[in-house]
Amino acid sequence: MDHFEKHHRETHAESALDVTQGVEQQPIVNPHFVRRHRPEFTTEQFVKRILEGDIAVLSQAITLVESNNPAHYAQAQEIIERCLPYAGKSVRIGITGVPGAGKSTFIEAIGGMVAAQNHKLAVLAIDPSSERSGGSILGDKTRMESISTNPKIFIRPSPSAGSLGGVARKTRETVVLCEAAGYDIVFVETVGVGQSETAVHSMVDMFMLLQIAGAGDELQGIKRGIMEMADAVVITKAEGDNITRAELAKRQFENALMLFPLPESGWRPKVYTSSAVAGTGLDEVWAGTMDFVSFTRANGFFEANRRRQNQYWMRETIDEALKSDFYHNPQIESLLPRYCEQVLADLTSPFSAAHELLALYKK
Amino acid sequence: MDHFEKHHRETHAESALDVTQGVEQQPIVNPHFVRRHRPEFTTEQFVKRILEGDIAVLSQAITLVESNNPAHYAQAQEIIERCLPYAGKSVRIGITGVPGAGKSTFIEAIGGMVAAQNHKLAVLAIDPSSERSGGSILGDKTRMESISTNPKIFIRPSPSAGSLGGVARKTRETVVLCEAAGYDIVFVETVGVGQSETAVHSMVDMFMLLQIAGAGDELQGIKRGIMEMADAVVITKAEGDNITRAELAKRQFENALMLFPLPESGWRPKVYTSSAVAGTGLDEVWAGTMDFVSFTRANGFFEANRRRQNQYWMRETIDEALKSDFYHNPQIESLLPRYCEQVLADLTSPFSAAHELLALYKK
Repeated sequence: MDHFEKHHRETHAESALDVTQGVEQQPIVNPHFVRRHRPEFTTEQFVKRILEGDIAVLSQAITLVESNNPAHYAQAQEIIERCLPYAGKSVRIGITGVPGAGKSTFIEAIGGMVAAQNHKLAVLAIDPSSERSGGSILGDKTRMESISTNPKIFIRPSPSAGSLGGVARKTRETVVLCEAAGYDIVFVETVGVGQSETAVHSMVDMFMLLQIAGAGDELQGIKRGIMEMADAVVITKAEGDNITRAELAKRQFENALMLFPLPESGWRPKVYTSSAVAGTGLDEVWAGTMDFVSFTRANGFFEANRRRQNQYWMRETIDEALKSDFYHNPQIESLLPRYCEQVLADLTSPFSAAHELLALYKK
Repeated sequence: MDHFEKHHRETHAESALDVTQGVEQQPIVNPHFVRRHRPEFTTEQFVKRILEGDIAVLSQAITLVESNNPAHYAQAQEIIERCLPYAGKSVRIGITGVPGAGKSTFIEAIGGMVAAQNHKLAVLAIDPSSERSGGSILGDKTRMESISTNPKIFIRPSPSAGSLGGVARKTRETVVLCEAAGYDIVFVETVGVGQSETAVHSMVDMFMLLQIAGAGDELQGIKRGIMEMADAVVITKAEGDNITRAELAKRQFENALMLFPLPESGWRPKVYTSSAVAGTGLDEVWAGTMDFVSFTRANGFFEANRRRQNQYWMRETIDEALKSDFYHNPQIESLLPRYCEQVLADLTSPFSAAHELLALYKK
């Protein structure tokens, strides 16, 4: 089963538990699997097999995490809580780039290399379009074929949810399960849509921006704020005729990055050129990544950053829920448009409007 | 009375209504002023005199806005609502820079120039330190002396409040009053502390970053995110021996800014050198400012930006209040530390912790 089909099944029938991933499909003997619409494993059974690195069970657990069914949610939280003590022992790397920047090819190439170096790699995704279409631009049928059958690599398309916050939570919790299953390198990829980069940046240790060398003006196309998130920039498709352009782009990015203050990590972001096709640059990117990890572990940033990220997610979740309750309150929902109009027409100050709405909400 | 004394009085005795500002103090004949601790003007009287440009009454109204006394707050909101139809007819310019960048000198010089061109200028401030100390780093006794007695210039130190949100609200509402009083240019200055630049940026039409030319590495000291907010950068103290350094700094900033995508305004930020002492550069800065205003009015960004800012303040105020209510809830206050510890110790996921706290809060 390839990724597109799997993802299609998962988003169109939440109870269709994921059977196999990356392993050739075989008939399942376990009678528990007959009743597809109810997970029959206990929490303990899930946790035991996840810790053993059972890919099928890991996938099923992730499907529970991604489910909007309250019963599934409850069990998913139990599984996560039991897995937490075994999680965290990984390096989490965020990878972003616009469509066409060569993310799949890059991940395929560097993923293969990383797995060959005795790592277990999980490739996850946050795809904002999955909020709406159920389809995933990060779930293309032909993507990452060469690593989709690598037993040391686990690939999972983006979950879908009603909001980016929902997608982010599910992905962040999936990281926990993957780590408990022994995946010591975790990629979280995203495209540059909405706030998805911010979400990914808030759950990884290192953030990598992939760029394709263009006509010399590619810096113009970068979303504001992304440059400052990047710990590394990789200019892709640096091969053949494109090498000169790639080198030029590299220098432009280096100049731009040097103009920023040093990030809190203390690590000056580096720029690489690479060609997945020619196989060049990947060693340097990976060595640089490992250097970053050593450096930030040594200076304490790595741990401090993870702690801060956890705090962030707790407060962010609270904040989003408080706002959701407010804006979905029937009275507020009916009154809000009128207040917005008044504010827009300068008939009332935004602060007055806010205070009145809050007063009504509290009753 | 100079600004330091005035600010001191205002922050240490909220009911000490501001008497005169920028005008030589004269005995007040109005018997209403005898009872200093209660404003005796009706809302109508306040509004009438504000619209007439009465500086003393404007100052008193602002003191009401800045007051934490609920009765004062209520009347302040009435005054603001009545003034709103007369407000908005100004250009609001945010000015930021670290201490030592020459903000006061710059504002003094350009302020005098602007007032001479038949404008009425209000100079306001957001000073985060006023949250704590009651003193103002933007209230220095010797600042802006030459314009402090200019009848066309109104200067008000930062309000204080329990939070940046409170300071921002009070300043934003003060803008309304100043505009109703006929001030058609409004400066809002701040130092680069915390989120104060974001607050200022969210209430102005144009954001100006002041920088002093240093040893060639000044870009290193700029807070992340500030560059991207700037519509103009002014390299100050470009005089004498410093001119070469200033020109170099100008080129560095221009290179850096060119590497960013074009802002939504469509206006490519410009860099200027200026010397308040030598009187150079100020014409160019002001001409550039007026160009920016024409440009953004013509392409619709000016109005759209103001509308979005109002929406922002309404939602921001709601958001802050919802969070404040949550985090100050006695049950939450007592439970939160335990949950934070559990999250920090990886005993519970940040999402679980958040959901449990929310469930308890809703009861």
